[in-house]
Amino acid sequence: MELKIGIIGIGAMGRDHVERINERVNGAVVAAISDINKDTAIAYAEEIGATFFENAEDLISSEDIDAVVVTSWDPTHEDYVLECIKNNKYVFCEKPLAIEASGCLNIVHAETEKNKKFVQVGFMRRYDRGYEEIKHELQTGTLGETLLIHCTHRNEMVDEGYDTPMAVENTAVHEVDALRWLLEEDFVTAEVRLPKKQTTKTHAKLHDPQLILLETESGVIIDLEVFVNCQFGYDINCKVVCEQGEIGLTNPTYYSIKTERKDSTRVPSDWKERFIAAYDRELQIWVDGVKNDNITGPSAWDGYMASVTTSACSEARDTGERKDIKFEPKPGLYNQKLRETI
Amino acid sequence: MELKIGIIGIGAMGRDHVERINERVNGAVVAAISDINKDTAIAYAEEIGATFFENAEDLISSEDIDAVVVTSWDPTHEDYVLECIKNNKYVFCEKPLAIEASGCLNIVHAETEKNKKFVQVGFMRRYDRGYEEIKHELQTGTLGETLLIHCTHRNEMVDEGYDTPMAVENTAVHEVDALRWLLEEDFVTAEVRLPKKQTTKTHAKLHDPQLILLETESGVIIDLEVFVNCQFGYDINCKVVCEQGEIGLTNPTYYSIKTERKDSTRVPSDWKERFIAAYDRELQIWVDGVKNDNITGPSAWDGYMASVTTSACSEARDTGERKDIKFEPKPGLYNQKLRETI
Amino acid sequence: MELKIGIIGIGAMGRDHVERINERVNGAVVAAISDINKDTAIAYAEEIGATFFENAEDLISSEDIDAVVVTSWDPTHEDYVLECIKNNKYVFCEKPLAIEASGCLNIVHAETEKNKKFVQVGFMRRYDRGYEEIKHELQTGTLGETLLIHCTHRNEMVDEGYDTPMAVENTAVHEVDALRWLLEEDFVTAEVRLPKKQTTKTHAKLHDPQLILLETESGVIIDLEVFVNCQFGYDINCKVVCEQGEIGLTNPTYYSIKTERKDSTRVPSDWKERFIAAYDRELQIWVDGVKNDNITGPSAWDGYMASVTTSACSEARDTGERKDIKFEPKPGLYNQKLRETI
Amino acid sequence: MELKIGIIGIGAMGRDHVERINERVNGAVVAAISDINKDTAIAYAEEIGATFFENAEDLISSEDIDAVVVTSWDPTHEDYVLECIKNNKYVFCEKPLAIEASGCLNIVHAETEKNKKFVQVGFMRRYDRGYEEIKHELQTGTLGETLLIHCTHRNEMVDEGYDTPMAVENTAVHEVDALRWLLEEDFVTAEVRLPKKQTTKTHAKLHDPQLILLETESGVIIDLEVFVNCQFGYDINCKVVCEQGEIGLTNPTYYSIKTERKDSTRVPSDWKERFIAAYDRELQIWVDGVKNDNITGPSAWDGYMASVTTSACSEARDTGERKDIKFEPKPGLYNQKLRETI
Repeated sequence: MELKIGIIGIGAMGRDHVERINERVNGAVVAAISDINKDTAIAYAEEIGATFFENAEDLISSEDIDAVVVTSWDPTHEDYVLECIKNNKYVFCEKPLAIEASGCLNIVHAETEKNKKFVQVGFMRRYDRGYEEIKHELQTGTLGETLLIHCTHRNEMVDEGYDTPMAVENTAVHEVDALRWLLEEDFVTAEVRLPKKQTTKTHAKLHDPQLILLETESGVIIDLEVFVNCQFGYDINCKVVCEQGEIGLTNPTYYSIKTERKDSTRVPSDWKERFIAAYDRELQIWVDGVKNDNITGPSAWDGYMASVTTSACSEARDTGERKDIKFEPKPGLYNQKLRETI
Repeated sequence: MELKIGIIGIGAMGRDHVERINERVNGAVVAAISDINKDTAIAYAEEIGATFFENAEDLISSEDIDAVVVTSWDPTHEDYVLECIKNNKYVFCEKPLAIEASGCLNIVHAETEKNKKFVQVGFMRRYDRGYEEIKHELQTGTLGETLLIHCTHRNEMVDEGYDTPMAVENTAVHEVDALRWLLEEDFVTAEVRLPKKQTTKTHAKLHDPQLILLETESGVIIDLEVFVNCQFGYDINCKVVCEQGEIGLTNPTYYSIKTERKDSTRVPSDWKERFIAAYDRELQIWVDGVKNDNITGPSAWDGYMASVTTSACSEARDTGERKDIKFEPKPGLYNQKLRETI
Repeated sequence: MELKIGIIGIGAMGRDHVERINERVNGAVVAAISDINKDTAIAYAEEIGATFFENAEDLISSEDIDAVVVTSWDPTHEDYVLECIKNNKYVFCEKPLAIEASGCLNIVHAETEKNKKFVQVGFMRRYDRGYEEIKHELQTGTLGETLLIHCTHRNEMVDEGYDTPMAVENTAVHEVDALRWLLEEDFVTAEVRLPKKQTTKTHAKLHDPQLILLETESGVIIDLEVFVNCQFGYDINCKVVCEQGEIGLTNPTYYSIKTERKDSTRVPSDWKERFIAAYDRELQIWVDGVKNDNITGPSAWDGYMASVTTSACSEARDTGERKDIKFEPKPGLYNQKLRETI
Repeated sequence: MELKIGIIGIGAMGRDHVERINERVNGAVVAAISDINKDTAIAYAEEIGATFFENAEDLISSEDIDAVVVTSWDPTHEDYVLECIKNNKYVFCEKPLAIEASGCLNIVHAETEKNKKFVQVGFMRRYDRGYEEIKHELQTGTLGETLLIHCTHRNEMVDEGYDTPMAVENTAVHEVDALRWLLEEDFVTAEVRLPKKQTTKTHAKLHDPQLILLETESGVIIDLEVFVNCQFGYDINCKVVCEQGEIGLTNPTYYSIKTERKDSTRVPSDWKERFIAAYDRELQIWVDGVKNDNITGPSAWDGYMASVTTSACSEARDTGERKDIKFEPKPGLYNQKLRETI
């Protein structure tokens, strides 16, 4: 049985998912799309052999659609996700789940009322082989307790539409979710340093780089450099310091070259090159989960926790002070066991 | 449209392909199987929802089957592949294409008579990202001409069924095909050194390690260590020495650990761990190719060339002398352009 | 001409320097020693063919001694160094130059009065090939301005005599000097985080690990993890993030081993293994400098700046707040050009 | 006591040793020099404060000279070394010990007659930290027996004075000695492949690269690529394949740079950059040995064995055949224990 998927929003990310589902994922097909740019969407629907729905709500409620992927404009996520829950349809929603934490909470409440998880948020790092192997190693206990984590999140460059808050909300949010999942605990304080010395490669609306400090319930301290005009490539580092040793992500490389007195490996150009396998795996496991009526990925609760954490970071940045991170009690629905890594 | 695939032979390799096609490859399904172990095969067919054919020829000729995968006992490959060609069906055949070079040639002739390539041989290294990136770099020309290649092919251990000839026929054959593809030229001489000093971890019927020396038409010399009881893991190396530098495979790693005064990355345990992505990619591209009526992978001619090369290696090993590698002229059918890497 | 050196204090560090000077350094010999443990010192003096002085002041003023090395108990450093200046003798003093910043300032004043630098402080990292090469690369300008630095200073373990303040005063002080030298600017704020979550391998008097944050005049932010019971070895990292790329220390390795599914290099056991060449080079260049009447190493002023910086760190740690680092204006004597690296 | 050394031949290598002894080695001084270029030598002697001897034999026999370093024109080595032995003077002679194996044997006989080793040959790799650590690891036995060794010896480029035979005699000779020392056994066969495909960067008199195959008494097979116009730097590799794993030299690096989508470390430009510490250590240990009347470095016998091995290689290259390596029985004098590594 092929899962029939409807996709709302066919910008770059939406089309990536269409291509993924129709060309690389097993057992699913994009059967319908909806997008506010009607003409483009109709043409694209025809190209990929999908039905076009002018109204996203109709796509969601259609009997011909088994599950929904939301890749539309951020402010519309909350409504579409709620509509999916109302229709008892599984929905994969790209981050953010909602613009505000309160919106995420609306979704959490909708799910808890039905006592079922319908929502998966697009935090793909949980599906990266490096993070998975690190989590697996930490869980064996050989390295002892985790004490500190050092991270960098570097992009080669960003355009003028990317401003100071986005460093937290669009960029650091990936580490926020990945580290919560890795450590299986929540953050309690946040602090952001905006160094007086910035790169000359940035623009007026963006303070670049930034240094974020987070602390977890148990007392693990994380430092995270966000540097989105680093020029040299896409460079994700995560070093976990434990009682008996350090474990860290490597940048997977496939070849090395010795030439001109240098021995080099490649630094990826962007997140697509670095995390392509994680994106494919994320969707495959989601599709399999939907078919088995048991999804195991980042939940609406995880979307909410990412939201309250990044909000605290933003406040910390604006005030220059360390901020406590406050959140609601976790509904029992979200205590279900996570997918086993590896 | 889902491609309906029939698989002949459901041993370990066959079942791996079933799982791959039914769970990870897009656009295909295993619709039929055949195997000489009737009872097991019937049960397995039921389990995966496929039709069981007692007679492989019936599976091949069935109108319900679009393409065939041959993973049966080696001596049967030739006949099944010929039968597929007779039925104008695309066939993916695991190595070896035939037991003898003459058998491969029968297949080549069957294709050339129909003036169409139906056959792909299971040399999956051409689909490994490392080899692909190296080929891509070599083709840019930046490193100049290739002069020498240093390879190792190491397995952690083998059982007593693995004997001296298999080091060439089952193991080195992967490098034979991958390097022909990488360099786009053929080998002209072969030499095998059986070192007086062997590992104590081998058994009576296996000389381990072995050192193979190949030379190409243009004069590139390759040394290849085959060491199948190396104990420490599965370790594939390939360093290409060029006029302006060296490019080599890295063993892709995803994390590193510092503990007990060591900074370590993982060595894979076996070929599955190392080449799993290449196997998946090989089948996906084959399925896409079949659907487009244009397959681009290792051809029957490549299967023949692998056979004549490994035969020369075996003769060289038995005589202790350097042997010339002789082969038939290449039919024009096989001059079609290869798939672009990356 | 062999430089005749007198050493005050023949504990472990003093004896290391004796061995260094008498066995590996060119052009110098230990001609005299002094130590409060009279009997041990007399025996040792005999063993190495040096004169024993009961009174360190007599050693300093002796006409048979060309230059002095101070490796005595920390609280005595200031007086011995002042005595050397009074006697117009070059003196190499292990850190700390004095217990308090005010003591360092006394030494600075003694030198400025004579308008000559006599003092070198034992900050050996400036002589490590890795730091030297990084400084050289930064000075070429290719990488642009420095923005951030990420450091770790990890020891395998410490004994019960090592307490919380020592993480700053004895350990982080090395980074304090090395980074001032690397960046050629001073620190202006300090902050110390004591994570709630500590290693179980520490003892009651030591908070371990600690996270130190420093900021320079131009606005470069440094994070420095000090973790002195890390168990896995001596692990010094320093990654300098610039506008066009990142440059970092590697842990120099000389061999790698593949065994038991791991590909490993060695992590040094301690600072001796890691920095032995830097110590030898430091003394050789100091001896050469004394002979040429022109020393170029870390000065009394550098000793003073290290002291005010670590004092601010200590205060920051005790108060939990970010502290401004205040220092006296720099006398012109200390504006002399530094040694060229490499 | 400073060892007074006389140096015969003050070309580039001789002057390197002068600088080394006078500036970096402890306990020795260059007291005399001799060279056929009289005027230059007189000026240089004055510059370094040494006595000039017109006649090398006078330098050797001078009572003011404790030990001799021979860095003169290769054909003169044998006579000067014999003269040193006659005068009971320790002599450090750069390779080759003599032009022919028979000349080396003359020196061996002169020593055996006096039943004392006076001669050390300048094979500095035995003093490289990488080779030392590998030998130490092999001797622990953890990795089991050695089975194969893969080596490369690559130079960035050579001038037109460097011809085909020099690849063996001047270049591969370093591996010949280092591997004999590493394995503590001798070579019994040699083979040289001159690939049809050469680099376009070579010149008419030089076949480049070359592939040398050696076999030891116990049956270890070594492949050694000699490539002296490799363009990208000086690149020495040595991977020792054992029963339980592989141990290999790393190219020691001190920093890494991420820039322009590359993560790079430096490849040394030449042997000076790569082996400078080994050269210094070689001389220091030799000076210490002379003072203790017990030298432990490469002996006249090692010089002889290097000579017979490279001669066999040359013959193998010229004939295209595998050659047996024949040598005289080893005199008991040379069975003395080697220096402990590390």
